[in-house]
Amino acid sequence: MASDSPKQHWSTAEEEIMEATYRALLTHGYADLSISRIADELDKSKAAIYYHYDTKDDLLVAFLEFAVDRFEETTVTETGNEPAADLEHVIEKLLPLQPDEEQRQLQAVLVGLRSQAVTNGVFREQFTQIDERLAATIRGIVDRGIEEDTFRDVDPSRVAEHILATVNGAMYGRATTDRKSAAAAARVSLASYIDSELRRTA
Amino acid sequence: MASDSPKQHWSTAEEEIMEATYRALLTHGYADLSISRIADELDKSKAAIYYHYDTKDDLLVAFLEFAVDRFEETTVTETGNEPAADLEHVIEKLLPLQPDEEQRQLQAVLVGLRSQAVTNGVFREQFTQIDERLAATIRGIVDRGIEEDTFRDVDPSRVAEHILATVNGAMYGRATTDRKSAAAAARVSLASYIDSELRRTA
Repeated sequence: MASDSPKQHWSTAEEEIMEATYRALLTHGYADLSISRIADELDKSKAAIYYHYDTKDDLLVAFLEFAVDRFEETTVTETGNEPAADLEHVIEKLLPLQPDEEQRQLQAVLVGLRSQAVTNGVFREQFTQIDERLAATIRGIVDRGIEEDTFRDVDPSRVAEHILATVNGAMYGRATTDRKSAAAAARVSLASYIDSELRRTA
Repeated sequence: MASDSPKQHWSTAEEEIMEATYRALLTHGYADLSISRIADELDKSKAAIYYHYDTKDDLLVAFLEFAVDRFEETTVTETGNEPAADLEHVIEKLLPLQPDEEQRQLQAVLVGLRSQAVTNGVFREQFTQIDERLAATIRGIVDRGIEEDTFRDVDPSRVAEHILATVNGAMYGRATTDRKSAAAAARVSLASYIDSELRRTA
């Protein structure tokens, strides 16, 4: 589907608004975000933002799309090697073993945004696409591993959903609990699953 | 820790308030919940609720504790058989393969409540305990499987965190996206993981 592919062109003005939104989200969190605060980060008037986005929700939905586009762009350039290493790389990007402060704040922001998807149809549609695109990225790597005969003949869709659910769940737990080692423990177990279930022994 | 164990006694009045809270949450969702609406479900005055709980948040935190107590009580009576079957049973309770409408609504409510834990310390503490207790339940079954020699000698904590993260992530995805088959696919892969990684072949 075209809607699942990265948008080809973000204008410079749009990119600047997205960068300002990112900084404002990290500083103020999702609950206290306002167009005013984004305008402050952008060092422009609110009108400059409203020219591109009618509402705060429109802007946040665009921000989510922008974030996934960026994720996919960097993933394409950073992968393409041994499938097991690529899988590990994507998992580390989604769920860093030792997240720095910015990564922690970003995860908290994403949990705040995603909770809107329970009742807000536009956010729900956006997170449906986000998970679809992330699952497709993981599935693509598993497919390649099977083709190249470094992975066993597993069901790529099921394995991709398993990995995505584990990563999302561990990230969710990290943002909503104080269980410091839980996410890392889940990741270590996930890595050993990939090693023993997916990789063919040489 | 005592705080991780089920509270021994909920008074009848408290239990009635919890049941009313459950019905009000299913009917109105988390965002539109009020003490008034719970009082309506309870068919008593708001004062009858405020006698037990000072604020709506106090009541919701108690509700979460009540829900986990109930979960643990029924888990104790429903498990104690073959460890792999017990694990499957607990996973099915946390993430039903084919949730009915009530289970879907409950999951949506829990995602709404859990999102508060990003910024609210009291909710965060409660969800920390919830995940701790759920992980302990899973870990206990894995421990027993290893002792009884039906499971391989895996690391019970890591496996428990992996299973809990997968279940939480799939539930989270179900409540926040329209990806209808993703949760089921993750569960099937999780079951095959348990089968091949944990169970000793006869």
